[in-house]
Amino acid sequence: MKLAAEWIVGFVDGEGCFHVGISQHPGMTVGFQVLPEFTVVQHKQDVQILHALKKQFGCGVVRVNHGDRMAYRVRSLQHLNEHIIPFFEKHSLKSKKRIDFLKFRRVVQLMSEGTHLTSEGVEEIRQIAGEMNRGRLR
Amino acid sequence: MKLAAEWIVGFVDGEGCFHVGISQHPGMTVGFQVLPEFTVVQHKQDVQILHALKKQFGCGVVRVNHGDRMAYRVRSLQHLNEHIIPFFEKHSLKSKKRIDFLKFRRVVQLMSEGTHLTSEGVEEIRQIAGEMNRGRLR
Repeated sequence: MKLAAEWIVGFVDGEGCFHVGISQHPGMTVGFQVLPEFTVVQHKQDVQILHALKKQFGCGVVRVNHGDRMAYRVRSLQHLNEHIIPFFEKHSLKSKKRIDFLKFRRVVQLMSEGTHLTSEGVEEIRQIAGEMNRGRLR
Repeated sequence: MKLAAEWIVGFVDGEGCFHVGISQHPGMTVGFQVLPEFTVVQHKQDVQILHALKKQFGCGVVRVNHGDRMAYRVRSLQHLNEHIIPFFEKHSLKSKKRIDFLKFRRVVQLMSEGTHLTSEGVEEIRQIAGEMNRGRLR
């Protein structure tokens, strides 16, 4: 199944998620781990769509999410930088999810510069992450 | 906001719903009312998308759905026949929602032929409606 770029944007405007997880992590210098993640979740009956997304983005994995639901997931900083972010820079999201994307891109940029390894960097990232997905009834 | 046809298909694959409601209705000849309906529901922060859909389909209404959620809704048999169904015949849905669309189209066709005014027609429509949206975790 070949997906048009605009179809992917429309589908991600509806079903996609740009998320920045932050967890305490005693083993790391600053005590926090930052986990940016792009996901699309679908009922397993539409798992072929997730595989088509994986193929067209050229990265990521398709796994069980929860129960009958499957997830396409990209966590690699390199793949986010080289595949996911450039795609949505070229093809703009139409919904308010675009705002989450821009914040997500900023976090990935800070991480790529190593900023997340300083406590100031983590603080900026935590602030951005705190603003994301707020008040959304998804 | 101008929406590309493929963007609309992707968004409806994620967020759209083709539904056939059947309710008892003592005032009608066969005692049932059949209500096919195409809807897209969004949080009010993205209501501009629903207005853009209304503009591009050239029919339907945007109303409050429930709480902070808004709905774009097309119920008119004529508008379904002339605007919504031809669009999704030309631009195929990629998800399993396409199966619902085909059943929905069949119901609208039966209604346009007046078949829903006979008890056999209502029975066929009830059977199709019963098969729709089954086992979907929406």
